[in-house]
Amino acid sequence: MTFANPIIAAGVRGLQSLYAERAVTPVEATESYLSRIRGLDGALGCYVHVDAEGARTAAHESAARWQSGRAISALDGVPIGIKANIAVGGFPWHAGIGGHRERIAAADAECVSRLRAAGAIILGVLNMHEGAFGATTDNPWFGRTHNPWKHGHTAGGSSGGSGAATAAGLCAAALGSDTLGSVRIPAGFTGTFGHKPTQGLISTEGVVAMSWTLDHVGVHARSVEDCGLMLAGACGADGELAGDIATPMSLEMLKAAPFAVLDFAAVAEVSPATAKALHAAVERGRAAGLNFETISLGDYDFAAAIQSGLLICAAETLVEHDEALTANPEGFSEAYRAILKMGSSRSAPDLARAYRTLGSMAEAAREALSGYAGLILPTTPFPACPFEEQPRDVALFTTLGNVVGLPVTAFPTGMDEGLPLSASALAWDDETALGLAQAMTQSFEAPGDYRG
Amino acid sequence: MTFANPIIAAGVRGLQSLYAERAVTPVEATESYLSRIRGLDGALGCYVHVDAEGARTAAHESAARWQSGRAISALDGVPIGIKANIAVGGFPWHAGIGGHRERIAAADAECVSRLRAAGAIILGVLNMHEGAFGATTDNPWFGRTHNPWKHGHTAGGSSGGSGAATAAGLCAAALGSDTLGSVRIPAGFTGTFGHKPTQGLISTEGVVAMSWTLDHVGVHARSVEDCGLMLAGACGADGELAGDIATPMSLEMLKAAPFAVLDFAAVAEVSPATAKALHAAVERGRAAGLNFETISLGDYDFAAAIQSGLLICAAETLVEHDEALTANPEGFSEAYRAILKMGSSRSAPDLARAYRTLGSMAEAAREALSGYAGLILPTTPFPACPFEEQPRDVALFTTLGNVVGLPVTAFPTGMDEGLPLSASALAWDDETALGLAQAMTQSFEAPGDYRG
Repeated sequence: MTFANPIIAAGVRGLQSLYAERAVTPVEATESYLSRIRGLDGALGCYVHVDAEGARTAAHESAARWQSGRAISALDGVPIGIKANIAVGGFPWHAGIGGHRERIAAADAECVSRLRAAGAIILGVLNMHEGAFGATTDNPWFGRTHNPWKHGHTAGGSSGGSGAATAAGLCAAALGSDTLGSVRIPAGFTGTFGHKPTQGLISTEGVVAMSWTLDHVGVHARSVEDCGLMLAGACGADGELAGDIATPMSLEMLKAAPFAVLDFAAVAEVSPATAKALHAAVERGRAAGLNFETISLGDYDFAAAIQSGLLICAAETLVEHDEALTANPEGFSEAYRAILKMGSSRSAPDLARAYRTLGSMAEAAREALSGYAGLILPTTPFPACPFEEQPRDVALFTTLGNVVGLPVTAFPTGMDEGLPLSASALAWDDETALGLAQAMTQSFEAPGDYRG
Repeated sequence: MTFANPIIAAGVRGLQSLYAERAVTPVEATESYLSRIRGLDGALGCYVHVDAEGARTAAHESAARWQSGRAISALDGVPIGIKANIAVGGFPWHAGIGGHRERIAAADAECVSRLRAAGAIILGVLNMHEGAFGATTDNPWFGRTHNPWKHGHTAGGSSGGSGAATAAGLCAAALGSDTLGSVRIPAGFTGTFGHKPTQGLISTEGVVAMSWTLDHVGVHARSVEDCGLMLAGACGADGELAGDIATPMSLEMLKAAPFAVLDFAAVAEVSPATAKALHAAVERGRAAGLNFETISLGDYDFAAAIQSGLLICAAETLVEHDEALTANPEGFSEAYRAILKMGSSRSAPDLARAYRTLGSMAEAAREALSGYAGLILPTTPFPACPFEEQPRDVALFTTLGNVVGLPVTAFPTGMDEGLPLSASALAWDDETALGLAQAMTQSFEAPGDYRG
């Protein structure tokens, strides 16, 4: 989307420039975002909690730092939102679960405290799919998050609030979490960028676990560059390291490397528009000098991987929520409990087999990728659908990134019938994933402002 | 034990010297070991397969290398035995399971091929507890392995054949495997040294899995120095790295470090002789200049860890043997099937919780150990018992090493009523564990030759 208000249009890097030029202050930027939330979020349903006063206080502190030339980082004064399963001290921390509605986080999650230390301003808490276990953010307790591109359509999930708020300009960037695709699916459905980093690069301390073996914290932003800045901030890198992490690999460096494109048609049905836009992005990459070969992923079985992943998530979620589920089962929706019941009905050897399956799938995928610097694949097989439907095979392609633990950047590739299309760049390191996404989207212009 | 035959008494390092001095050839040494196996193993039950011809051929090749000054490594010409769950190409590979009695390994496990490449001579395959799931090596298919110190007593397990053959001089050293203590328990019961390396240092490729998350390959020998040489050979280190891995940390280096002694009396009942010998070893260490403090392991719960470990082993073993168990349940003893049934009766969340419990136990133990360079603890609470009894709490102390993945060396501390006593040295790296064990046993002399 494009935005009439240059403060909103600026994103993360742009705000930094505006602050440095003294064209805008963090106080003005924060007021712009708060005003936009007031005006538009009622219909969108991105935020489950907004802290206008806290944001204003932080904005004044940031403004004083910029004023005196003591800005801490590129994120100083940048208004962001945080997914509801990531602890922000003093804010609701319910992970989209009704039974935790009244829970207030005692302290910041490590990634939040690092962003705060970098000067970021926390606007509030973003809606998500209940317990992160689903991809529609049609939350029975906190409402639906609508897709800014089409009301009544899902913004994806589980980080639906993070994706939609980023897309609609209700924050400059956001934190999400991604266990089987929960950052990249909403990024794909809302035409934004979503980066799931290398496993462990951003700490999951203070994040309600869906699966402690597959969970990742990821970032949502409106450009690759902004994703890199959020990534560096959330993992607490500073000095030269921050610059390295925040800087996507340059096109010149990428030209030397062989890249792969997944033969996705052999994996599953993909919408013609999604396929066409992905191929066009590859052609843009080729025109820019990148090298691509079409490959399959050998013995990596996309369907088997997601089945194993879902069992692992169900079993680990049950352990995470064991006490709360026993004490107050009605605090979890019937649909959520039904999914979890599937996990509790399976045996210990079934789960052991699932871990082993994912282990051998990861090995197979790494082997198939060993000759390439990265892989392009669809983010989701289809664009966003109405809430009345369930998105088909929605995590089929994204699960790969969690299984191998490698970084993936979802990037917009075009539009179809008013809804965004997306592809994903997976690589061996974060800089390459970000750089590849950047190289393939640089000529893409998303049309139109969101006016509600 | 001491041995009248200097070739047997020489162990690994000693043989190397005898070969280098041309006092003995690998052919003579191999014949000595083969002759000793013929004479004594009928009563002991260490070997389930002996390859006299293959060993002789390899011995002649090694002799030619020594003759021409082209010996490959310190293990060149050293006769060793291999536990029955580790693949030796062309040899039975049944892991002590009757249903696999006829299975012949198609190729060497990686650790075996590395030992072979280092010039080691493989005498044969050693008995073990059925499927590695137990600590007595009272095998219903392949017979009992008796303790060389007392007939009718267990040599421990699951690597009972490896421990007993090493103790009785039926090999210079051996490979075993250790999932909850299976190298260290037989080392402790037979008065030998058993080293469980850092997790992953020796490859588990080609080893029948008991638990792929807890399995380690380890080494049995009659001195710390010999353990180091076997370790370097089995992990395929060469050049300077081999020297580093094979060399226990020197006493002078260890004097600078703070060590801990577990307050084991607070954990479980330990035999007075075991406790007394451990304290005497600590006093020997102090007299040599080492520093010890008595500690507890904070939130590491020895009993909870072993319960979680056993569930993980049962679930992963069931996956490993799924097909064979279904196709031929009678190929597994009733007792073994009963243990595995315990695993299959538990739920997926139970297993997820067990993994999480071990994860937090590992964290607690590492935290408690963070101020120390190593920890002394009992190997087992009691010495070996008759086959008619089950050893009590036999893996209670050893499980710690598998949970944290850190190296541990079991070393003899004395004798009680004709049976060996043992303690274990756990450290952050293999060289320190070996060095600590060496420093504390240097003055210990085990009495008597084994004459059957």
